[in-house]
Amino acid sequence: MLSELKERVLAANLELYARKLVIYTWGNVSGIDRKQGLVVIKPSGVPYEELSPDKMVVLDLERGHVVDGHLRPSSDAPTHLVLYRNFSEIGGVVHTHSPWATAWAQANAPIPCLGTTHADHFYGPIPCTRQLRPAEIRTDYAVNVGLTIVQAFKDLDYRHVPGVLVASHGPFCWGKDVHDAVYNAVVLEEVAKTAYATLALNPACKPIPQVLLDRHYMRKHGDQATYGQKVF
Amino acid sequence: MLSELKERVLAANLELYARKLVIYTWGNVSGIDRKQGLVVIKPSGVPYEELSPDKMVVLDLERGHVVDGHLRPSSDAPTHLVLYRNFSEIGGVVHTHSPWATAWAQANAPIPCLGTTHADHFYGPIPCTRQLRPAEIRTDYAVNVGLTIVQAFKDLDYRHVPGVLVASHGPFCWGKDVHDAVYNAVVLEEVAKTAYATLALNPACKPIPQVLLDRHYMRKHGDQATYGQKVF
Amino acid sequence: MLSELKERVLAANLELYARKLVIYTWGNVSGIDRKQGLVVIKPSGVPYEELSPDKMVVLDLERGHVVDGHLRPSSDAPTHLVLYRNFSEIGGVVHTHSPWATAWAQANAPIPCLGTTHADHFYGPIPCTRQLRPAEIRTDYAVNVGLTIVQAFKDLDYRHVPGVLVASHGPFCWGKDVHDAVYNAVVLEEVAKTAYATLALNPACKPIPQVLLDRHYMRKHGDQATYGQKVF
Amino acid sequence: MLSELKERVLAANLELYARKLVIYTWGNVSGIDRKQGLVVIKPSGVPYEELSPDKMVVLDLERGHVVDGHLRPSSDAPTHLVLYRNFSEIGGVVHTHSPWATAWAQANAPIPCLGTTHADHFYGPIPCTRQLRPAEIRTDYAVNVGLTIVQAFKDLDYRHVPGVLVASHGPFCWGKDVHDAVYNAVVLEEVAKTAYATLALNPACKPIPQVLLDRHYMRKHGDQATYGQKVF
Repeated sequence: MLSELKERVLAANLELYARKLVIYTWGNVSGIDRKQGLVVIKPSGVPYEELSPDKMVVLDLERGHVVDGHLRPSSDAPTHLVLYRNFSEIGGVVHTHSPWATAWAQANAPIPCLGTTHADHFYGPIPCTRQLRPAEIRTDYAVNVGLTIVQAFKDLDYRHVPGVLVASHGPFCWGKDVHDAVYNAVVLEEVAKTAYATLALNPACKPIPQVLLDRHYMRKHGDQATYGQKVF
Repeated sequence: MLSELKERVLAANLELYARKLVIYTWGNVSGIDRKQGLVVIKPSGVPYEELSPDKMVVLDLERGHVVDGHLRPSSDAPTHLVLYRNFSEIGGVVHTHSPWATAWAQANAPIPCLGTTHADHFYGPIPCTRQLRPAEIRTDYAVNVGLTIVQAFKDLDYRHVPGVLVASHGPFCWGKDVHDAVYNAVVLEEVAKTAYATLALNPACKPIPQVLLDRHYMRKHGDQATYGQKVF
Repeated sequence: MLSELKERVLAANLELYARKLVIYTWGNVSGIDRKQGLVVIKPSGVPYEELSPDKMVVLDLERGHVVDGHLRPSSDAPTHLVLYRNFSEIGGVVHTHSPWATAWAQANAPIPCLGTTHADHFYGPIPCTRQLRPAEIRTDYAVNVGLTIVQAFKDLDYRHVPGVLVASHGPFCWGKDVHDAVYNAVVLEEVAKTAYATLALNPACKPIPQVLLDRHYMRKHGDQATYGQKVF
Repeated sequence: MLSELKERVLAANLELYARKLVIYTWGNVSGIDRKQGLVVIKPSGVPYEELSPDKMVVLDLERGHVVDGHLRPSSDAPTHLVLYRNFSEIGGVVHTHSPWATAWAQANAPIPCLGTTHADHFYGPIPCTRQLRPAEIRTDYAVNVGLTIVQAFKDLDYRHVPGVLVASHGPFCWGKDVHDAVYNAVVLEEVAKTAYATLALNPACKPIPQVLLDRHYMRKHGDQATYGQKVF
């Protein structure tokens, strides 16, 4: 069942590990088959060295039931599902506790767009969700995490800002497929580290002007993209 | 004698090295056989590349005498023994000078719980011991280090906060076995680094609310744990 | 066509990757054949693992047209060409988003010469370009980036300060050949990191005196250089 | 000539590189044969990958003349020789531009003893030399660097503080042999990094009390040392 997607989700999880965004069993990547309405996700608490395609867990998008696999899904699975249900064009979701992005999340601060590395990948600041209320933490916690992410994108296009900081927690990223989602998670960590150092050097540093943000983001994305070997 | 435990203690010491928590001969891991009342610990001052199971040293828990092995035990052995005597459910102890945890220890500051990475593993702030008095430093120093750790846990459950910062020194961690103790030492270093960056970004950052701490800690620990593949 | 230069430009691009100045497809190195007026540059958006000599792109210096190769050149190619046209003795150009140099660029701050590591390689502060005007961003952006670099060197000798920070963007470096340009990019990152830490330790730290700058720079460069195995 | 010492000096230089204290051709290690009054040192400006025993340079201690080898010695050789002449018990000298120690040197600040990692290896603060005067920079510069180090140890025992920060430059370390000198350089970098983080967390942090410094330093050094497998 979904053997190709399982392979790709496995490879994406291993890439998180190889790129040092996660240690031990931390972090998780999922991918979706939109036609079948099925999501493939990493099992909970299994070390990266022991992962194999048959250990991936398949959930149905609608209700979150396990429809294939003999292990428990990642405990963050309900958050992934909320993102797939609300962000209709995404094909992959990544969650990590990568240290620099997590520091911004714990600081409860959005990452301002301070340079072109950021602008090449995220069209504006990377938002930080609001704190959950006690009742939202006590019941359906992982679902409510997802809902605060969706709220944070009420006036934002998730396709152009493919990541978020969950307050006091850490980053979630997404993309058109699992590889793209991992790529965005790696870039977010790089951007988070560089923004930290920038503000330490110059606490008064302002975000780049809109015209520069437009130039860089549009160079890589959209109809008139000129970066890379074909128009995306 | 205790050949399986020696193998596991050796592997745990090597894992410290592989995960870059220690350099040269720094750091040490021990494990205990509670039935026999015997502790296996790394020898003092031997480089990690030269360690082998037969170089491990066996001490009796009660009096700290060497009962097997031809090398001197780690000079921190008396501290390990105090922990085993007072924290009756622990199976392994780890000491490192990992840089971020050591920075907090040198700053004489407990690590506040600023996010869910911390809350997943430590149920509240990670305490810092009081400074030793001159007389405690001059006589039975390594024993007294252990006793200040025990004091720091007078009103704390060592099973739920499996690590401590020894003031002006560095971290000690423990766990149900040696692997678990090493895991906690790795997590502590990650938490220490991220807390540092968080406070640099937002010096006014407050600890997470109790309800979020409960949710995350209980998700991974205790009777109703839902993380991983079985209830621990 | 230019097969030897293609090999060297490829090797220089791979060295950027091996030395961790770039991730994924980021960064680019070019080299020039001054006699033929031809520049070899990395293609746009191709991962480092997939690069080969035949994927390098050849541009004519004068007009920037592709004269060999089947892929699009790096989107920063126009900036490289401006540098080759204005800095007549350089043989290689490197652009990266290496994190510490990028942090200084995003902070819009030149890197002061705080020590001899800097003085060994850059004869004075490493300048930061002025911000581009909106019209300069909207049209011929990559050319205008190059022109602001040239402006920043109006009263500076590019041969003795072989690198620059492009405001809100990142570093460009150059050298007598591609290897030298990569070397300068690596040194710039090291200098940027150390200058950051120096000012964090001592915010009042002043640049080194001219006599020390002269001594160190002249030891490695110029007619009376005594460093290395021959006079450069 | 001195083939065994050449091998050891080569190995020590390579260890600097393997432990990431140096890049490219930076840094240098020398060792001395006290009986013959001969010093073996790395050649100037040769990449680490190209070093071999026969490329090591032999100098006579007294006058600094090359007595064996076909390459120029490291440009820091005169500093090494001053140290060997004045610190009669040292067997090896190491110079690096390792980033954290260099940041302290550039900040012109001694590293205070903030914890036991420091106290285990350096008996008190690690001094920073005074700035050289213009005349001292213009003539016999590398000799004068050595003399300011000797001055900094006028009231300090070089055997118990085996390293120094040269103001605006970087660290020099030494030891009873070349391996010991490299070890001290690695420890200094670790101590420099941790002290930086400690003061960032707690700017009011005071040095540890003398009694703790004594306890830790004496545990590893001197007649009553108890660390390791024999008394040093």
